[in-house]
Amino acid sequence: MEVTRTLAKFVVEHRHADIPEKVRHEAARSFLNWVGCAVGASRHETVERALAALAEFSGPLEATVLGRGDRLDIMQAALMNGITSHTFDFDDTHLKTVIHPSGPVASAILALAEREPVAGEDFVHAFILGVEVECRIGKAVYPAHYDIGWHITGTAGVFGAAAAAGRLLGLTEQQMTWALGIAATQSCGLREMFGTMCKPFHPGNAARNGLLAALLAQQNFTSSNQGIEAKRGFGHVLSTEFKPAEITERLGETWEIALNTYKPFACGIVIHPAIDGCIQLRNEHGLKAEEIESVGLNVHPLVLELTGKKTPQVGLEGKFSVYHSAAVAIIHGAAGEAQYSDACVRDPNVIALRDRVSASVDQAMHEDQVRVVIKLKDGRTLEKFVEHAIGSLDKPMSNADLEAKFRGLADGILSKPETDKLIRLCWDIGSLKDAAEVARASVPAARSAKAAQA
Amino acid sequence: MEVTRTLAKFVVEHRHADIPEKVRHEAARSFLNWVGCAVGASRHETVERALAALAEFSGPLEATVLGRGDRLDIMQAALMNGITSHTFDFDDTHLKTVIHPSGPVASAILALAEREPVAGEDFVHAFILGVEVECRIGKAVYPAHYDIGWHITGTAGVFGAAAAAGRLLGLTEQQMTWALGIAATQSCGLREMFGTMCKPFHPGNAARNGLLAALLAQQNFTSSNQGIEAKRGFGHVLSTEFKPAEITERLGETWEIALNTYKPFACGIVIHPAIDGCIQLRNEHGLKAEEIESVGLNVHPLVLELTGKKTPQVGLEGKFSVYHSAAVAIIHGAAGEAQYSDACVRDPNVIALRDRVSASVDQAMHEDQVRVVIKLKDGRTLEKFVEHAIGSLDKPMSNADLEAKFRGLADGILSKPETDKLIRLCWDIGSLKDAAEVARASVPAARSAKAAQA
Repeated sequence: MEVTRTLAKFVVEHRHADIPEKVRHEAARSFLNWVGCAVGASRHETVERALAALAEFSGPLEATVLGRGDRLDIMQAALMNGITSHTFDFDDTHLKTVIHPSGPVASAILALAEREPVAGEDFVHAFILGVEVECRIGKAVYPAHYDIGWHITGTAGVFGAAAAAGRLLGLTEQQMTWALGIAATQSCGLREMFGTMCKPFHPGNAARNGLLAALLAQQNFTSSNQGIEAKRGFGHVLSTEFKPAEITERLGETWEIALNTYKPFACGIVIHPAIDGCIQLRNEHGLKAEEIESVGLNVHPLVLELTGKKTPQVGLEGKFSVYHSAAVAIIHGAAGEAQYSDACVRDPNVIALRDRVSASVDQAMHEDQVRVVIKLKDGRTLEKFVEHAIGSLDKPMSNADLEAKFRGLADGILSKPETDKLIRLCWDIGSLKDAAEVARASVPAARSAKAAQA
Repeated sequence: MEVTRTLAKFVVEHRHADIPEKVRHEAARSFLNWVGCAVGASRHETVERALAALAEFSGPLEATVLGRGDRLDIMQAALMNGITSHTFDFDDTHLKTVIHPSGPVASAILALAEREPVAGEDFVHAFILGVEVECRIGKAVYPAHYDIGWHITGTAGVFGAAAAAGRLLGLTEQQMTWALGIAATQSCGLREMFGTMCKPFHPGNAARNGLLAALLAQQNFTSSNQGIEAKRGFGHVLSTEFKPAEITERLGETWEIALNTYKPFACGIVIHPAIDGCIQLRNEHGLKAEEIESVGLNVHPLVLELTGKKTPQVGLEGKFSVYHSAAVAIIHGAAGEAQYSDACVRDPNVIALRDRVSASVDQAMHEDQVRVVIKLKDGRTLEKFVEHAIGSLDKPMSNADLEAKFRGLADGILSKPETDKLIRLCWDIGSLKDAAEVARASVPAARSAKAAQA
């Protein structure tokens, strides 16, 4: 079975008309969410440090770091947007493989689209194909590959970036086969890096290296024709289990991007049910912190194992505290990056409510469930059982939810009209004349003006 | 045991004075051989295609592609020189790990030295430390890591490049620890790519990414502090066996570069004894092809297994023919790239002698041995038993041999005075005021003039 060549042929020959409308819509949702995450983290220290290291080595300044005035060459821009979009760990998740699919793919092709205009239709098509490639390759090695210690967003992402970029570059089947091989031999990224700046570096690096693979293949730089399936290729070297049928079966009939999910809250997925339940009770009853006597949570065992921190001191620790998360859910009605800032974790009002939150394990709970019991000072008891948390495949975020998340991320970076415009462009990505318009519109006017002067 | 930090501290704190003179001399020999290989392959198709893909994305043109007029930004130049120097597979070999040590390390730091002047003494020091790091990390995982399918020159090389570049950038111990971690999470390169342009891409990619690791760490871009030894770090994820003591024991007391070897012939090491024996008999007896009745070879079994091709049709196939190799050894007294060209493989004189070469397996032979029996038309029989082939650790190439190899590689690219000057600079690398002088001197005058006009 020629896995690499089969995949290459599929990517090269696929027709846009054969993508179902709902798949295209999910691609727009993924893209919107990705742009929001990238803009939201564009001022983060991780991004500043990477830019400080790289900018002076940039080639032609053809592409944009989303949300900033900085322009870089396309490979550096792909790297930077991959970093920014994963910095908050708030981007999309393909639950079957735990790949964050958009980062590597969108970062690579948006940079390319800024160099050479691409119609939105072709852009979305390449994006969907790239996500298909990375997620299918991921499925072929998950979970063994992940369990060994590979960060699958990096290792599989490079294939997605190469495939999508190669499609836009118009590679032949042979060139695409080589591009996937050059991607295979650059596949990397260790889970050991979780909790450091290297975690968001991984999707950025996958974007950069996938783009390089496509550009090299375009010049007939050769690689193995069996980069994925050979005995010494990706599947067997980076995994103890390799299921090639996951890559080739029903190719073009099913679409992995249709299974994409989006995080409503800027923390580990395990505490999302508790946050969801608290926000629902808050909104239904117009709750205020001072009315509340106590908050009780019945949770799945993993919740306390992973997020049992009682008294977090800094923002990042707040993400590992179900107590802090429940408190901000009730006070702010949200759990975005702002709710995991140092200031918010130290806010006396938040601490006061946090101290009245208790949590107990219920072995019968599924991971996606929670029971929230709020006792009020007036004697009433409010209760909410969550079967599936918002953001799960069973209860996806609505388009309005995604827009609200976007606005939260863009707040303080873009003006309201700028945010409105950018959201509209993301929804319309599939019909834009020039997909790169999104990149230009992500830069706040003040920054654009400054860049123009420089 | 803190392996990564121990290594980082060693690289940051080591004093030049503590390197024995003979180790420094071996570094100069390695460097000379590396420059020759890079210059020699600088016109190769592999290099042309990579340059065609990359050059238009280059940043500041601060570094040189050795042997060419092209200038690129330092990360691209590191990539290109890593590619050129391994294109002929003629560079140095650390036999204990089969790493080709110079490519990743020298490519990274020579590019850096062109940006910011570096004294030759510091350059050689960083080079030796980089080689030490990559070879020790290689020893910790070899052979399991290689057997799985990793191309160890790529996977270990990125650490060497990061360490050497980081040393020249003056990283702190913490920054160097991060640089090694950022290297770990970029470690890649599959043996499946052997026989394609991706093989020489690996040391180039290691150089490029190692340099990136050092530049990011310099800006305090964080990674794990246990990138090498952690459960989900390099050693355990990329190998089934990890021996950390190989990295830390006797650090600073032994030097891996002292165990470096150089190939006298541009083909697999398994036929080097036969070529060596034939050249010795040729030179001792002033042999000419027309005097020879037959050439008989008693060889180790691997020789016929790997290089038993009787009638090679193209240059590359000649490398897998002990018959062709023996014939050119006798006719040309050499087995360089010129002897493995298509033209040479098709030369009627070579074919005529090749057809008179026979080989038989002798199970008692060691890999490094051969018996050559040449029967002359005048009835005489000449015999030579080779115990260790030239180029092995037991019978290293002399300085004069290395110079002759260099001249063969530079022939047709540099003029005789240019070659003389470049060889002298390589020998003197440790005392140059500015190590980058070597890069400038590698460019033929005609190309320099053309570049200046452009």
